[in-house]
Amino acid sequence: MTWQIRSRSLKPEDLLVEESLFSLANGYLGVRGNLEEGSLYESIQGTYINAFHDVVEIPYGEKLYGFPETQQKLANVIDAQSIQLFFGDEEEPYSPFQGEVVHYERILHLDKGYSERMIHWRSPKGKEVKIRFIRLVSFEKRELFSVFVEIIPINFFGKVKVISHVNGDVTNYVNGKDPRVGNSHAKLLNTKICKTVDDYLVVINETMRTKIQVGCVTTHRWEAGQQSVETNGQTVTITNIFQLRKSTVFEKRNVYVDTLRHGQNLFETGVSLQERWKHVTMDQLLTEQQEYVEKFWNHADVKIYGDDKVQEGIRFNLYHLLQSAGRDAISNIAAKGLSGEGYEGHYFWDTEIYMIPVFLLTKPELAKQLLMYRYSILDGARKHAKIMGHQKGALFPWRTISGSECSSYFPSGSAQYHISADIAYSFVQYYLATGDEAFFEMYGAELLFETARLWLDTGHFSEDGFRIDAVTGPDEYTCIVNNNYYTNVMAKYNLQWATNVYDQLDKKGTEHFTRIKKKLNLKKEERDAWERAAKAMYLPYDEKLKINPQDDAFLKKEKWDFSATPKENYPLLLHYHPLTIYRYQVCKQADTVLAHFLLEDEQSMETIRHSYHYYEKITTHDSSLSTCIFSIMAAKIGEMDKAYHYFTETARLDLDNTHKNTKDGLHLANMGGTWMAIVFGFAGLRIKQSGLHFHPRLPEKWAGYECNLQFRSRELTIKVDQERTEISMKGEPLQLFVFQRPYLVKEGEPLTIRTTGK
Amino acid sequence: MTWQIRSRSLKPEDLLVEESLFSLANGYLGVRGNLEEGSLYESIQGTYINAFHDVVEIPYGEKLYGFPETQQKLANVIDAQSIQLFFGDEEEPYSPFQGEVVHYERILHLDKGYSERMIHWRSPKGKEVKIRFIRLVSFEKRELFSVFVEIIPINFFGKVKVISHVNGDVTNYVNGKDPRVGNSHAKLLNTKICKTVDDYLVVINETMRTKIQVGCVTTHRWEAGQQSVETNGQTVTITNIFQLRKSTVFEKRNVYVDTLRHGQNLFETGVSLQERWKHVTMDQLLTEQQEYVEKFWNHADVKIYGDDKVQEGIRFNLYHLLQSAGRDAISNIAAKGLSGEGYEGHYFWDTEIYMIPVFLLTKPELAKQLLMYRYSILDGARKHAKIMGHQKGALFPWRTISGSECSSYFPSGSAQYHISADIAYSFVQYYLATGDEAFFEMYGAELLFETARLWLDTGHFSEDGFRIDAVTGPDEYTCIVNNNYYTNVMAKYNLQWATNVYDQLDKKGTEHFTRIKKKLNLKKEERDAWERAAKAMYLPYDEKLKINPQDDAFLKKEKWDFSATPKENYPLLLHYHPLTIYRYQVCKQADTVLAHFLLEDEQSMETIRHSYHYYEKITTHDSSLSTCIFSIMAAKIGEMDKAYHYFTETARLDLDNTHKNTKDGLHLANMGGTWMAIVFGFAGLRIKQSGLHFHPRLPEKWAGYECNLQFRSRELTIKVDQERTEISMKGEPLQLFVFQRPYLVKEGEPLTIRTTGK
Repeated sequence: MTWQIRSRSLKPEDLLVEESLFSLANGYLGVRGNLEEGSLYESIQGTYINAFHDVVEIPYGEKLYGFPETQQKLANVIDAQSIQLFFGDEEEPYSPFQGEVVHYERILHLDKGYSERMIHWRSPKGKEVKIRFIRLVSFEKRELFSVFVEIIPINFFGKVKVISHVNGDVTNYVNGKDPRVGNSHAKLLNTKICKTVDDYLVVINETMRTKIQVGCVTTHRWEAGQQSVETNGQTVTITNIFQLRKSTVFEKRNVYVDTLRHGQNLFETGVSLQERWKHVTMDQLLTEQQEYVEKFWNHADVKIYGDDKVQEGIRFNLYHLLQSAGRDAISNIAAKGLSGEGYEGHYFWDTEIYMIPVFLLTKPELAKQLLMYRYSILDGARKHAKIMGHQKGALFPWRTISGSECSSYFPSGSAQYHISADIAYSFVQYYLATGDEAFFEMYGAELLFETARLWLDTGHFSEDGFRIDAVTGPDEYTCIVNNNYYTNVMAKYNLQWATNVYDQLDKKGTEHFTRIKKKLNLKKEERDAWERAAKAMYLPYDEKLKINPQDDAFLKKEKWDFSATPKENYPLLLHYHPLTIYRYQVCKQADTVLAHFLLEDEQSMETIRHSYHYYEKITTHDSSLSTCIFSIMAAKIGEMDKAYHYFTETARLDLDNTHKNTKDGLHLANMGGTWMAIVFGFAGLRIKQSGLHFHPRLPEKWAGYECNLQFRSRELTIKVDQERTEISMKGEPLQLFVFQRPYLVKEGEPLTIRTTGK
Repeated sequence: MTWQIRSRSLKPEDLLVEESLFSLANGYLGVRGNLEEGSLYESIQGTYINAFHDVVEIPYGEKLYGFPETQQKLANVIDAQSIQLFFGDEEEPYSPFQGEVVHYERILHLDKGYSERMIHWRSPKGKEVKIRFIRLVSFEKRELFSVFVEIIPINFFGKVKVISHVNGDVTNYVNGKDPRVGNSHAKLLNTKICKTVDDYLVVINETMRTKIQVGCVTTHRWEAGQQSVETNGQTVTITNIFQLRKSTVFEKRNVYVDTLRHGQNLFETGVSLQERWKHVTMDQLLTEQQEYVEKFWNHADVKIYGDDKVQEGIRFNLYHLLQSAGRDAISNIAAKGLSGEGYEGHYFWDTEIYMIPVFLLTKPELAKQLLMYRYSILDGARKHAKIMGHQKGALFPWRTISGSECSSYFPSGSAQYHISADIAYSFVQYYLATGDEAFFEMYGAELLFETARLWLDTGHFSEDGFRIDAVTGPDEYTCIVNNNYYTNVMAKYNLQWATNVYDQLDKKGTEHFTRIKKKLNLKKEERDAWERAAKAMYLPYDEKLKINPQDDAFLKKEKWDFSATPKENYPLLLHYHPLTIYRYQVCKQADTVLAHFLLEDEQSMETIRHSYHYYEKITTHDSSLSTCIFSIMAAKIGEMDKAYHYFTETARLDLDNTHKNTKDGLHLANMGGTWMAIVFGFAGLRIKQSGLHFHPRLPEKWAGYECNLQFRSRELTIKVDQERTEISMKGEPLQLFVFQRPYLVKEGEPLTIRTTGK
């Protein structure tokens, strides 16, 4: 049961949300769960290729120096979803919104990697058929999106007309009222080629400004009947008429290619891929898909005993993470994955803080790819640092696809300098989790050096220590502040590790290090300054409250009046001017609390506990990045009821559409957060220089849970129930820590410990 | 000499600047100093009607809650400046850029109220004439703009063709690179009527969105020759051909009317005004203009002995102030007056802090009009407060024409809450300077109550006192801060005076007060809270530096590295990202220093002096509102060299185009600042509850100076030379203070005191 996401709804509001929930993707290509037959209601018809974007001008009422002139925008590419069916000589069109739906169900098969829609339908004139749509975006063949259609006659036998489109006349979704989705430039693509060649329907679109192209080459594998083809310059339409005598299956097989990856001859490349896979049958596609997904679950599955709703949620989330992650150096994971157009397909810090941790411990080769993407835009980050007034260093853009800043509202955009430290942190975590020294030194070192430089240029030494002024922390309800605790402590870590890797490379004295030093004009004095700044880093602390203030001024502000805030005024950002929000102690999301999770050894347990309690009272969780962190930290301080409460807010956020905007795409960071709440929260896992740490706890409502993990080429399983925690391992012996005590774990000798930890 | 601004330049770059310098206006209608014959070079052809604007959408990359959706934009209306001359049968066109200019001069007659251009010109084919253009925008007949053309034959006698246009096909100037001018929406008007009726040329334009209309009805008073008329739907053109035998003069008389003031029948109104003034001759127009101007100078002239350059500057500035001030309740003084399109014709705090003081003491009836405008947009300010998250009170928009916020970048726009206190301050100053109790109680009281409410809603009581967080002070290089000294101290004054006027009205117990209380639902408890907040107002003070910090965090920031800032990087706002600028101790303009000028009794002389020295080092004066204040405060602390130095930076800012953007219009606030530097700076004048205060000083380079002033229905003259200060007066006896000592001054008995004060 918990391997399948099911819906029987045909309600308009559900359909829109299900377009995101049932979206399919493979990190390269993503297709929303639109209906092949088309919908009567509002729908966001979408097909996306990761990183495939156009550039649009950013308009300003008052444009100040350094405001980005353009932004990238993920393009809705070519629509190949559409398949219309007509029955009988009078050509009654099939639509679930007409006639009678005897039975309807849609399933997303998390264990098989495809989605399925089945309908038992009686036409207005009484023709009765069952129809099944199966669709698959192949993990093994990234360009491939196939739809299988099965028609089972019940009382109707006769003429069936199939009309299938490949449509280049596509637009992006816009909404002028919601700052979280695009508000202009619906039309990003022009159709350059629209034709049929042999059995291929071909559409090639080009972005209006960047002039990159995307192509779709489609074939139909069916019993050809009376067939005809039509093109109108933007759409190719094929019609096939046949006689339905018994159950029939056909396939619409679409191959997507783009000039960012496939060279300039998209038509030839598309056709040659079709040719190459010509002999691969439907069954073979389904089988290889299932094998891929099974392998993933072997390394990544989380089992929850005694809570099917949550079980469904965590698997759903992990599955969509797997679908969304870019697999090449030019792509990453968009805030909404490839499931929708929210945040315009941009990559944020979400990847490093909320998603890479999942891959790090389940599919580290994907984590590596994601980090390679960041390395690939290091030059963009250098340029961005210059624009933002820095002599040296790299400041990663807050939101971007191809490396330049796409945020037009800098107080909660470019001002979030912490993203550079977050990325640096992620490189370090990757290194600690995989031991991949070669990668760390080849790519991580340069990135750590350049980000360390940023901090030195941004902050300054003063009598209080090394201060960092005028930045914004993760909490977007408090912008442009001085000494944001999160930023400062993360910068400190960044500086420390830049120093570490400098020393590590210096000791080895490789040619590579000589090259880096030359390239960056890097001197020992800089390394020493990093060390000094890290040591002197000012971390605000309030003696009276025994907490880390979010920033220098935070605690002096008036607390937001929650009692006077009606429920419908949340999220606050949609109901209050940002300046009003900035004026008060109110947090959109975990900020200091997040810092205490990422770098727990920087503060005493007492400070962490007090801080948690303080910020909990003033945090609205208007961001989907928040509750998972509160869950983790509630677990850490031993408040398991709270931990569980916050966890339930995160586990099914999209499945239950609790943020009311799942239609714009899934909340990928929150999906990672669900997993984190289990693994980092309940199991208490941390990746530190000393190794892997666990602090397992069990929510009262569960009978137990079990997680598969990867760590330094080992496969681990941690199984926690009320009595005991069992950690088993495949691979070389590994020292790890449980409740801070070291244990050596060996293959075939599971470690067993009493669960109840402090 | 110093009554005339002269130029002999025909250089393209000078011409563009002179369009502003030689602009003519009367508070209602403004015409830039474009050339009647047209220019070969870049030119901003402009005619404006105060407050006549269209509304345009403000575009955003990311639009957050409460960001204004539209803004007003002063429209360039209908162009009636153009008069082309052709000589001889071959119709050689007159142009100063062809043929030979034997002599050329342009004069702005500050004492007569018109401008004049004279050219002695030899055509490419040798025809020699002198031509004189005189233009006048009437102070007494606000709708009237006349051009007189005199042609004096030298060696040419024969056919002259005159082509005169009234052109409705106008656009606004746009520049996408400079945030200080508009960047889009060049076309604001459509021509609705374009025709001739009898001798009238008529053009009526309508704004594209607000659908308000402006009309121009033009006649020509000339010896009619061979005359013809042409219209093309947007432009009416009249041609007149006559024989030049002797000196000839003709007039192009334009009457502008608009639906904001003249009802809906613009054509009829325009014609009837033309009819009414039909018998007024050119000479009569010039005479009544001169009388108006003379009267102004009698009340307002400033004489500088021993410095003609400065004498020229101050008169030029006062004259343009007189030209720019709106004379009705729907208009005010735009940042650039009616001389150009910089800042899109918006009204800022500039009026209250830099311009009203001039009128208050020279032409108080104009000051009253300007304050009436603020009262007229009080409802807009109430609405704006609501948008900005306040339950009660009035927050005046940072930039506006018709009362709604036009600033799209709120950190240095709407966040400048101090504008509400500035306006309140101005009402109080008006009251103190005129004793006009009726006006103060009728309009000032309501405005003071509503602004006091704003402060109570914005700030909060804490253990430090009453704090005001998350606002921006006057210094736009430091945005969104807590407890900006300027804001807090001005809010305190606002709260105090709201309390005062409440008590004053309460004592009188008038019906008017009952009405206000009912209208505002105002209770005694609120008044008491204002008093408490004023008393408890937190005013940041630094014990070590003995200064008032600009805000809570200011002194903790790193100082801007001026030594590493090349000269061409000023103004900083055009070369650094705002976030970079916010990160450092660097001021665009006087902030705390301005507060010390406006409310000097709030701090000790020591604090004022230390503050002055501290901020002087870190202020770039990138705003034209800065040096005048530093001049005043340098004088106050007795540093006369500095005072004089800053004064010279302000006195001729536009005449010498030192900010390089005079082409976009004159810096009206700075023009007021020049006068303030003399009257408040050198003469040390202050308007306080106790009365009029002087502290006269003389800059070393001057032999003396003399200012005419109005105060509580008296005419005063203060004359300062190296030896002595003489204050003479017409009117009832008046107690005033010189060097803090009280004197009773009587008509016919000038007060004489030694000049050298501390």
